[in-house]
Amino acid sequence: MLRFSRHFGTSLRSLANPSRVARASTSHPVPSNPQMAFPCLDRIEKKNALLQLKPAANSMESGPEPSYSRIQSGYKTFHLKEPIFLDYGGYLPEFKIAYESWGTLNAAKDNMILVHTGLSASSHAKSQEANPAPGWWENFIGAGKYLDTDKYFIVCTNAIGGCYGSTGPSSFDPADGERYATRFPILSINDMVRAQHCMVTEEFGVAKLFASIGASMGGMQSLAYASEFPEAVGKVVSISGCARSHPYSIAMRHCQRQVLMADANWNRGFYYDGVPPHVGMKLAREIATITYRSGPEWELRFGRNRADNSQSPALCPDFLVETYLDHQGEKFSLEYDANSLLYGSKAMDLFDLGIKNRSRALKKRTETESQNLGQGQTGVCALPSQPYQEKHQATETPEESLNDLVQGLKPISHKQILVIGVESDILFPVWQQREIAEVLRKGGDGRGIEYHELTNEDSMYGHDSFLLALDDIGGPVRRFLEKASVE
Amino acid sequence: MLRFSRHFGTSLRSLANPSRVARASTSHPVPSNPQMAFPCLDRIEKKNALLQLKPAANSMESGPEPSYSRIQSGYKTFHLKEPIFLDYGGYLPEFKIAYESWGTLNAAKDNMILVHTGLSASSHAKSQEANPAPGWWENFIGAGKYLDTDKYFIVCTNAIGGCYGSTGPSSFDPADGERYATRFPILSINDMVRAQHCMVTEEFGVAKLFASIGASMGGMQSLAYASEFPEAVGKVVSISGCARSHPYSIAMRHCQRQVLMADANWNRGFYYDGVPPHVGMKLAREIATITYRSGPEWELRFGRNRADNSQSPALCPDFLVETYLDHQGEKFSLEYDANSLLYGSKAMDLFDLGIKNRSRALKKRTETESQNLGQGQTGVCALPSQPYQEKHQATETPEESLNDLVQGLKPISHKQILVIGVESDILFPVWQQREIAEVLRKGGDGRGIEYHELTNEDSMYGHDSFLLALDDIGGPVRRFLEKASVE
Repeated sequence: MLRFSRHFGTSLRSLANPSRVARASTSHPVPSNPQMAFPCLDRIEKKNALLQLKPAANSMESGPEPSYSRIQSGYKTFHLKEPIFLDYGGYLPEFKIAYESWGTLNAAKDNMILVHTGLSASSHAKSQEANPAPGWWENFIGAGKYLDTDKYFIVCTNAIGGCYGSTGPSSFDPADGERYATRFPILSINDMVRAQHCMVTEEFGVAKLFASIGASMGGMQSLAYASEFPEAVGKVVSISGCARSHPYSIAMRHCQRQVLMADANWNRGFYYDGVPPHVGMKLAREIATITYRSGPEWELRFGRNRADNSQSPALCPDFLVETYLDHQGEKFSLEYDANSLLYGSKAMDLFDLGIKNRSRALKKRTETESQNLGQGQTGVCALPSQPYQEKHQATETPEESLNDLVQGLKPISHKQILVIGVESDILFPVWQQREIAEVLRKGGDGRGIEYHELTNEDSMYGHDSFLLALDDIGGPVRRFLEKASVE
Repeated sequence: MLRFSRHFGTSLRSLANPSRVARASTSHPVPSNPQMAFPCLDRIEKKNALLQLKPAANSMESGPEPSYSRIQSGYKTFHLKEPIFLDYGGYLPEFKIAYESWGTLNAAKDNMILVHTGLSASSHAKSQEANPAPGWWENFIGAGKYLDTDKYFIVCTNAIGGCYGSTGPSSFDPADGERYATRFPILSINDMVRAQHCMVTEEFGVAKLFASIGASMGGMQSLAYASEFPEAVGKVVSISGCARSHPYSIAMRHCQRQVLMADANWNRGFYYDGVPPHVGMKLAREIATITYRSGPEWELRFGRNRADNSQSPALCPDFLVETYLDHQGEKFSLEYDANSLLYGSKAMDLFDLGIKNRSRALKKRTETESQNLGQGQTGVCALPSQPYQEKHQATETPEESLNDLVQGLKPISHKQILVIGVESDILFPVWQQREIAEVLRKGGDGRGIEYHELTNEDSMYGHDSFLLALDDIGGPVRRFLEKASVE
């Protein structure tokens, strides 16, 4: 035993009979260590069984509605029974937009603020008579609040592609009466705002918004709306957004999509009458949650604490940060339509307000329309048949790339635009918001362009700061809205 | 058509007959848009079918060996037929360590450098006679290179828990002759280095290493080795490592584990005779790949380029960065044992050289040993029965937390230690390497502690810089090794 003691000296107390360790089996060999338990997988299996027993609970075919329909009610619907042609060649023969409003549209119809949401949010930004539940920006909007309903008429929509009342992949295609599922066309952020513009003019008769405001995907939309219809917007506020997506964000969303699509229950998008891909959704949300927050916040909030220090470590969640992610994923897994997530996530990847991309999209839409459309022009996605190879493409220089954005945003560079960035954001890093301000200033005289940055001292909440650091975001927004218009 | 033209004005060219758009169905209704194709899923299904036809190709039970065994050959094996007791209560009745070496051990036996690997690397750091394939640090090690084989005797091991020749979950438990799978005990980084220490003393008769060197998980091990056996190490080099894991890294690894464990083929770890969880492995590797590189590098390398601009956008990979991730995942999916990934990843999460954690581990090992072990003392993992709740735990203050590390590392604070950090690393952010240097300096007179940082200008390769920015890492390492010893 000498050799043994030498290696494990300080920790070895007694080992009376080494042969007992190897435990030569008699009739019933016992493994050296017990089988690990997997309560997280047990739970998934139990949930699967439950969902299989009650498919109706997760089908929109028959009641009760799925949770993502149930949690949303009390919205109004704008329904345009005309086709909308999309940036990447598809079209919708008609569409609906779910919206809610707060405050009153004045007689001059010049006090309307359109609030754009993040990827998975509904039109329910704030409680209202028809739905008294707190909204996702409950304390940001209201009488005397940052978006003051005593002054402004606030409207929030569920973007097309969503599942909270607007036309999306879970809607029925009027052409054949079946759900779109993955026959839904690829959407762009600009498609979403063109649909919103129809609603603004048709439903409210508003020719020019007082302001277009949004954060995250909404921060893309607020810029895109102005960019598509420069004369139809007064002021623009873009919070934690960007002028085009960058590869790190694309990579993070890519992983979410692939994880979701790998869930057999996703069934290439046709899951509406079966068990929904709740595991894929849960995992995708866990990845997303990492991108929504910041390391320093978690350091303070969770540190290295384990959920239960008396338990042995496990492969199922056991650090506190793991149980937090698990909970966030679980909560979301049946709250949102998986296909809506995929299409919205892809639209964010594709976002690019550079002049080249805008021109390509216009050309594509024009082609589709002139071909009289709907005949299957949506190109079918293809994976390169060759395995990945590093391509030494003639890429743009950083200057050319920047200039592409300057040109793309030139039509709105003379406007009053507030850009807000958050230093602790890892999904839309702050250089992207600085970039928006930079290209806007380069495209015009820069007088109307304001840039405000929340430092790590202001907010450690990362990308989610617009939901959590209301004062730090709201203060600059209110001051900006109250400023005299230059137009 | 007026209203229509107003909304889609610039892009509308002609819409001869709107009723054709809605396409009232005759006998065979045609959807508005075609079904999207999913070549990435087609490929997975094809691979599944192939693996089902040829299970032997992925089983270690019968030839041919799985690819993760095939790619590794020509190593030597240290086999200790005595039990090793582990930090979290489990034990291995015996164990093997695969190793390779370069250079010659001198007569004084004082020129040995132990190289610790990253999570999924083998002992094949460099080509050698028995395996002429290039190693993972091929150009770092060699005659006249940064780790100079003319001077030093370099040894690299596959850590226990791995699948490249050392005892891991794919090994057979001598107690019952079955594979460990998830009956393998939870490992710690310190367990790995205690096993290595047996090899160093038994196999080579070396009482004191000239240096303990490693990057990433190896950067944890190089510190842990010194920390477990202060008198058995001369110099220490820790590259892109940390003194304890932080919640952001834990979160990223958590997602990888959950994605992998959600693959039905993983089968709670018992997949060795069936189709391996290649999809889960692929997805886990894609997430990992994001953490290994940096945004700025991808900005330059991929930008927003799509793999094939002539194709319509797709939900399967289509941006160049997506095809890159897809390829990295695919390549890895059968190259490494899934259970080894899970256990290694968990060991990294659990890494904490603070005095409290070290004391707990020692207590646990002592208990297990004194109970004469192997009777199932490995606590079974448990998910908290209550759903996630924010716990307002009495957490340590940042000062207390730092002091815990200072005390934990005090036994090696007098040593010569080089810590290298990389500014662009998002997995082991540079504040963690600064922290190592800080706590080492606080624990002693600080004279032997050196800190070197690669700025974004030096390397944009993030966590992978130790594999790619050889000159920037190697220069400081060589100078440090050549300095006169203080002991």
